[in-house]
Amino acid sequence: MARYQLIIAYDGTEFSGYQRQTHQRTVQAELEQALTKIGWEEHSTIAAGRTDTGVHAHGQVVAFNLNWKHNHTKLANAINATLPSDISVSQVQTVRFDFNPRYNAESRTYRYTVYLSRNKNAFKDRYAWQIKTALNIQKMNEASELITGIHDFSAFGTALTEGGSTIRQIHQAFWQADGDTLQFWITANAFLYHMVRRTVKTMISIGSGSMHLENVKKHLQAKKPTEHGGMIAGLAPACGLSLYNVSYPQEATQLEN
Amino acid sequence: MARYQLIIAYDGTEFSGYQRQTHQRTVQAELEQALTKIGWEEHSTIAAGRTDTGVHAHGQVVAFNLNWKHNHTKLANAINATLPSDISVSQVQTVRFDFNPRYNAESRTYRYTVYLSRNKNAFKDRYAWQIKTALNIQKMNEASELITGIHDFSAFGTALTEGGSTIRQIHQAFWQADGDTLQFWITANAFLYHMVRRTVKTMISIGSGSMHLENVKKHLQAKKPTEHGGMIAGLAPACGLSLYNVSYPQEATQLEN
Repeated sequence: MARYQLIIAYDGTEFSGYQRQTHQRTVQAELEQALTKIGWEEHSTIAAGRTDTGVHAHGQVVAFNLNWKHNHTKLANAINATLPSDISVSQVQTVRFDFNPRYNAESRTYRYTVYLSRNKNAFKDRYAWQIKTALNIQKMNEASELITGIHDFSAFGTALTEGGSTIRQIHQAFWQADGDTLQFWITANAFLYHMVRRTVKTMISIGSGSMHLENVKKHLQAKKPTEHGGMIAGLAPACGLSLYNVSYPQEATQLEN
Repeated sequence: MARYQLIIAYDGTEFSGYQRQTHQRTVQAELEQALTKIGWEEHSTIAAGRTDTGVHAHGQVVAFNLNWKHNHTKLANAINATLPSDISVSQVQTVRFDFNPRYNAESRTYRYTVYLSRNKNAFKDRYAWQIKTALNIQKMNEASELITGIHDFSAFGTALTEGGSTIRQIHQAFWQADGDTLQFWITANAFLYHMVRRTVKTMISIGSGSMHLENVKKHLQAKKPTEHGGMIAGLAPACGLSLYNVSYPQEATQLEN
């Protein structure tokens, strides 16, 4: 018996989110069904984050215990052969028995993709948000700097547990342009519920000129949600979002010698 | 009333091919349903080519007559707003009333995408064929040169009409590598049924060393299918293929002054 960490990718389009739910197609249920076929016997796997309906992942992290006689490559191949085509295992690693991908995570990185076009695009719509107006990326990067650091993000998302802290630390946030595709990269210690999609919607409003940078400052400075008068903006569509990477301190995963 | 040419793109994954069929979800049926909603009244549209189940298109060409009072941009937007998310219109043009996208086509370009990886990838699997072994691209490009020109391709595909000619002219064919992604570009006056997918399967066999270049020569030189002993290879999966572009002589589309 050993504890395994998987890095998995999934196209979230056809899933009702990551977390298992009765009568819904979820990533967790498909993954656990595949694991059961190769001898996994626990009640539940543990994942780094619970992505919403339609949200993708390039670097979701999952851990579980398994009795497996062969090497890591064979384990990856066995799971991949059983998984549906919209989930894949990209890495297998043996980790400490007390490794918890959710509680041990040091930081998470999300990527949000936008494409600038007056025309719809059948290939891009699945993985990006189409924006028809011109965007001022410089302004969007100024907003990215404003949110970087330790702030109360209660205007950008809600705590996962009632009464939980809404303070988070953003390590890095920036927009990057490549032709008509824009990508927003954001890394934080953790995120509030819907925080990335609301941040993206806010920045697109700033970039298109319908919101001022001052508004971001005002919402970050307020101490209580009532002071800033509710959420700063609505949500950017789920399709553009991907849980890209989760980082751990070396001690969290490293096996004892 | 005017005649319109659309360039459309579609993600073929969820379609039973391009051509309308009873009780099947097809691109043609979805497109004609969208056109009907904006006032199109003909019996049928005409397309440049009929792609198979699971095959994509970046540049399918479709023509029809329509009474439309507004400009091209508004027509594109109206059709796009009605189409499902896996079909999109990228260009609208007014053309001659006798324009036929199938018979007037001068050449067609297909693109086939392969990715080299020992691991499955949930994002790439939808649009590319995963190859786990190393490939000799130089040999694959030598095979591309062998098939370029005018040949009898009866070992690579079948004529669309019984007893039809199996001679085609390939203008250009080559493999291009970008990291672990390989793309095969092939342009011909026209293609036989399944010709591109069988050509790709042949070349992957050559690249991986399981088929010799001599075999391609032998199959191209034989005058009758019986001489070469049947088809040269099986089919590469549909998901890697896209009808990328169709070219027309200027006279075919140009409006009279």
